[in-house]
Amino acid sequence: MSDQISLIPNNSLITATPEEGRQLAVKLARLIIKVTQPDAEIREKLRPKYAEDAGFLIAIGQTVATEFATIAAANNYWK
Amino acid sequence: MSDQISLIPNNSLITATPEEGRQLAVKLARLIIKVTQPDAEIREKLRPKYAEDAGFLIAIGQTVATEFATIAAANNYWK
Amino acid sequence: MSDQISLIPNNSLITATPEEGRQLAVKLARLIIKVTQPDAEIREKLRPKYAEDAGFLIAIGQTVATEFATIAAANNYWK
Amino acid sequence: MSDQISLIPNNSLITATPEEGRQLAVKLARLIIKVTQPDAEIREKLRPKYAEDAGFLIAIGQTVATEFATIAAANNYWK
Amino acid sequence: MSDQISLIPNNSLITATPEEGRQLAVKLARLIIKVTQPDAEIREKLRPKYAEDAGFLIAIGQTVATEFATIAAANNYWK
Amino acid sequence: MSDQISLIPNNSLITATPEEGRQLAVKLARLIIKVTQPDAEIREKLRPKYAEDAGFLIAIGQTVATEFATIAAANNYWK
Repeated sequence: MSDQISLIPNNSLITATPEEGRQLAVKLARLIIKVTQPDAEIREKLRPKYAEDAGFLIAIGQTVATEFATIAAANNYWK
Repeated sequence: MSDQISLIPNNSLITATPEEGRQLAVKLARLIIKVTQPDAEIREKLRPKYAEDAGFLIAIGQTVATEFATIAAANNYWK
Repeated sequence: MSDQISLIPNNSLITATPEEGRQLAVKLARLIIKVTQPDAEIREKLRPKYAEDAGFLIAIGQTVATEFATIAAANNYWK
Repeated sequence: MSDQISLIPNNSLITATPEEGRQLAVKLARLIIKVTQPDAEIREKLRPKYAEDAGFLIAIGQTVATEFATIAAANNYWK
Repeated sequence: MSDQISLIPNNSLITATPEEGRQLAVKLARLIIKVTQPDAEIREKLRPKYAEDAGFLIAIGQTVATEFATIAAANNYWK
Repeated sequence: MSDQISLIPNNSLITATPEEGRQLAVKLARLIIKVTQPDAEIREKLRPKYAEDAGFLIAIGQTVATEFATIAAANNYWK
């Protein structure tokens, strides 16, 4: 793991709205891919595979859903 | 991630009924696919793959189940 | 998503017993498949694939387990 | 779903010990396979596939872990 | 399921430390594989497949993570 | 499982910040791979497979998300 890559923007799970929480979930999921594959060129080469494969798109959705569950709990569901 | 795509309709996890919560879970799952693959034409091409493949259909169900768990908790299970 | 398909029978997560909660979990999982593939004929064609493939059977079990976790929490574990 | 198949033995998530809770998790996972594929002959044919395939064995473990999480919570972790 | 195989060592989810909780999570995951495939010889044959396949290693990690979530909650996160 | 491998650095789930919690989640996920495949040479051989395969990268993300959920709860979401 490269210490240079921040894994959580602003080092916080707290967001003002559910929408921002959802965007954070997407970012958290992407940053794990970045830290596992720090080479930007390889990531760029893999990106169309994610985005044009039905199975990968669903799997990304599953990961985001799991990240979002944590963020939503951290924000007490923005109640 | 395109900032133009809203990831949570009405920016809220709160729904009047479990049925509406379930519909929201389906929408949240689809919006992640949309934000990961913003090209509508490619999504349209992928859509039959989701809908006619037993494995993908089950995987979509798994993602919706995870999204729904969060929404149900946010609504205190509509109790 | 077709608005005609009800995603939660009786629009409620509350059941009298764990057994009924489990049956509801199975139904919720199936209704997501139905809403993603509304064509009954295609679903019928896919059904043997689910039921005669070890990997799909396990994956269905995983989805039902996730749905049941939510239903069980909603019913406070029928305590 | 066949109404004849009981999905939860004794219609209860409560067990005396963690060990019994774990056994219940295994049973719940198996009963979903049974209700999805009610034909005992086909299940018997599939059984070696589960038990001799590394990927299936891991996937069964994932499902049991998810079922057990619910059962453990229902029993307040046997504290 | 063979009744001879204990699924939870010491029949308890409580551990003195997070490290021991993690070791228990690994054991729980392995014991499900053992109970699903009780034949030690077949398990030995499958073991290199787990340990030398990137996908299986990740999947084992997912299962251990799920088991650990339950154990950590049972121990109130060792706080 | 080799007793020599520590599965949780510092034997604690508590971290000062969300960022450190996220780094811990990545480490926990990697340590399970290490304990399942203790041979460093084989792990090195597998590493490019993880890092250059879209499906594996997503699956690692799913595992980290699950580990992080536990760590975040243990830290009461750093509130």
